[in-house]
Amino acid sequence: MRMYDIILKKRNGGALSEEEIREMVREYTDGGIPDYQMAAFLMAVYFRGMTDEETAVLTDAMAHSGDTIDLSALPGVKVDKHSTGGVGDKTTMIVAPVVAACGCVIAKMSGRGLGHTGGTVDKLESIPGMQVSLSQEEFLRVATETGIAVTGQSGNLTPADKKLYALRDVTATVESIPLIASSIMSKKLAAGSDCILLDVKTGSGAFMKTAADAVELAQKMVAIGEHNGRRTAALITNMDIPLGRQIGNALEVEEAVRVLRGTGPKDLTEVCLALAAELLCLAGKGTREACLEQARRAIDSGAALERLAAMVKAQGGDERCVYEPERLGRAPYSLEIKAPADGYLTKMDTAGIGIAAMMLGAGRETKESSLDYLAGILLEKKTGDAVRSGETIARLLASEEHRFADAQRQFLQCVTIGPEPPQPEPLVYACVTAGGVEYR
Amino acid sequence: MRMYDIILKKRNGGALSEEEIREMVREYTDGGIPDYQMAAFLMAVYFRGMTDEETAVLTDAMAHSGDTIDLSALPGVKVDKHSTGGVGDKTTMIVAPVVAACGCVIAKMSGRGLGHTGGTVDKLESIPGMQVSLSQEEFLRVATETGIAVTGQSGNLTPADKKLYALRDVTATVESIPLIASSIMSKKLAAGSDCILLDVKTGSGAFMKTAADAVELAQKMVAIGEHNGRRTAALITNMDIPLGRQIGNALEVEEAVRVLRGTGPKDLTEVCLALAAELLCLAGKGTREACLEQARRAIDSGAALERLAAMVKAQGGDERCVYEPERLGRAPYSLEIKAPADGYLTKMDTAGIGIAAMMLGAGRETKESSLDYLAGILLEKKTGDAVRSGETIARLLASEEHRFADAQRQFLQCVTIGPEPPQPEPLVYACVTAGGVEYR
Repeated sequence: MRMYDIILKKRNGGALSEEEIREMVREYTDGGIPDYQMAAFLMAVYFRGMTDEETAVLTDAMAHSGDTIDLSALPGVKVDKHSTGGVGDKTTMIVAPVVAACGCVIAKMSGRGLGHTGGTVDKLESIPGMQVSLSQEEFLRVATETGIAVTGQSGNLTPADKKLYALRDVTATVESIPLIASSIMSKKLAAGSDCILLDVKTGSGAFMKTAADAVELAQKMVAIGEHNGRRTAALITNMDIPLGRQIGNALEVEEAVRVLRGTGPKDLTEVCLALAAELLCLAGKGTREACLEQARRAIDSGAALERLAAMVKAQGGDERCVYEPERLGRAPYSLEIKAPADGYLTKMDTAGIGIAAMMLGAGRETKESSLDYLAGILLEKKTGDAVRSGETIARLLASEEHRFADAQRQFLQCVTIGPEPPQPEPLVYACVTAGGVEYR
Repeated sequence: MRMYDIILKKRNGGALSEEEIREMVREYTDGGIPDYQMAAFLMAVYFRGMTDEETAVLTDAMAHSGDTIDLSALPGVKVDKHSTGGVGDKTTMIVAPVVAACGCVIAKMSGRGLGHTGGTVDKLESIPGMQVSLSQEEFLRVATETGIAVTGQSGNLTPADKKLYALRDVTATVESIPLIASSIMSKKLAAGSDCILLDVKTGSGAFMKTAADAVELAQKMVAIGEHNGRRTAALITNMDIPLGRQIGNALEVEEAVRVLRGTGPKDLTEVCLALAAELLCLAGKGTREACLEQARRAIDSGAALERLAAMVKAQGGDERCVYEPERLGRAPYSLEIKAPADGYLTKMDTAGIGIAAMMLGAGRETKESSLDYLAGILLEKKTGDAVRSGETIARLLASEEHRFADAQRQFLQCVTIGPEPPQPEPLVYACVTAGGVEYR
């Protein structure tokens, strides 16, 4: 194999063989292929795409480029969930305890936030004492004891993906559906679960701006998972509006707890129940209706909340925060944002609102930025709500007062008030399984 | 300027500003932009192309990335000619003396051959004593004295093009018309002539396989030249068949001399007269008909042959070889290739015939290969000729007998004999000037 021939084949629209892809990934990981050749290849993929077969092989080759997690010692069906990232997206902290309460095991690697999106491990770290850098042994022990374990990525998992992603990030080749799909799925395959549910967000706060793109990405990922022997499905969910009413690390833990108590916002609760039901379906726990009912009962009975508390305790965190979330603390400064006019909130630039939260200290501008766990935004009004001039539409929270000026300006740029209420959008657009796309 | 943004803009089909292109070329030449970002950019250009404006600026930026030649001290109009490369293409050795005899100055940098194509400086070096690595001072002195000077590329000319070309060569991004055009023209601009004539070859022995591609490349190059203040034109000429009947370094000098004596092959003579006339037109020497007449007279009078002899002498070569080309010598071994069947020679894979000549020692497989100046091919029959089974269609010449077996096999693969004579093809397809394309 000569890398030149691989680039040429892809540039001319050809499909690579399994052997070509595996050798390319191996040699690139080992440093045998220079970055300039890989960069040209990635740009050719941007324009020419990859077949499902090519994408599945690429993903598997990346998944096996380093260590993999062996979950086979855990009892029952091992499930995993991945969100493509959004604003106010605290679904993992709700869905994981719900499915664990329904008899699944969810031993999950999770990421940190960057830019406008948050990360589950950052959010969990806002709980005093919480450990999110577990050894493989601790990770398996916590998952066995409580049915849930969440850890940051560690060890030499998918080094090929890490190296490729770093290169894509500086060569404008991130936005390629087969490359996005294989990057996400390589980590999921390496993480060892039997079932994988993907929450593909779409809208102004998501990476995929249209439902059509989100469906395409979901189909690619489902095909990769199934091709590699994992039961895989995806929900396409709305991220044209922040999820729930609270954005920020401790604020999101608090809101997750409220959903698990049955008092959370309707949109967040509905999306979490849909995700949990789909995951239970994948795990063979019954029809979608039966699974939805099981998920509801896990919340109503308090079993899911108990699971969250057990996991927090097992990972060294103060489980009292789960029952009394005011123990997480509240930022010392707050600023009310007032509606500039009468009308309806017709649009929220959701990524922009994520950036406002970041400016308050809730997110990272660069990988090195430190986080303020208490900073964030409380949304009093959301898209579709009627507002009066001067009425509070949001509260900004921060530990440093000087952060308000820029964040307020940013927030106000992201909301549009108009005379007519907007067309309501569904929370879940579609479900993608091996059987096809089911629009809702 | 961030290189990332430049890649993204081009990837998305945008046009770069003059400032962006100039800064990119400067920074890349200085090592401030890594090869992996440039490789991604080049692949994006492969797919998205460049506007004429972008291509002209890129070319000028590359032309000024290093030293440039100042020909202003030379008297009269300075003209240059460039061929995109072919098999048996000895036109420079004919056209340069003709236009010099007509009062132009042609001070030319020329390349060496690689693969199936030859290079003018290699051919000239087959003349004993000939110096083709002239200092700038010698170069200008020879041009002043004789009206012609030909030297290999030297000094720090167009370092940006050298670096970019080396990267394109290993990232499958050579075949992009704006990149090919800017690479060729950057060297022409740096070489300092007032008028530039491009001989864009098309057909099986050329880089451009179709006349349409050749016209597109020619239009780009003419636009670049005119945009940068040079009178520029291009002829699209036939390279579906070797030019003339002799392929190989000394063999091509000999054939060039025959054309200058008025006894050369008709096809080669006609193409050279067309090229010379077009160059004289560009230099303002009259109408095309008048220029053609001047070119004819330069040959008929012996003035052009004298110019070639003067230049050879001024560059240290044995000028007696120009009058008695048998002094160049003849390879000790020869092999006749016989027609395998009765019929007509319907097709010659011209690049393949160039490779056969290379196998005999007349060309270079890699940049490091040494040359046998006497090796080559004499074509007894060419496309369109009737042949009888067993009749000699070509003679292979070599200094080492062991080279014949492979070269003969290669040559025979490249000729097709069929029952019907092929449709005759024109020698010159079109002329491209700032005014448009004129098909012939």
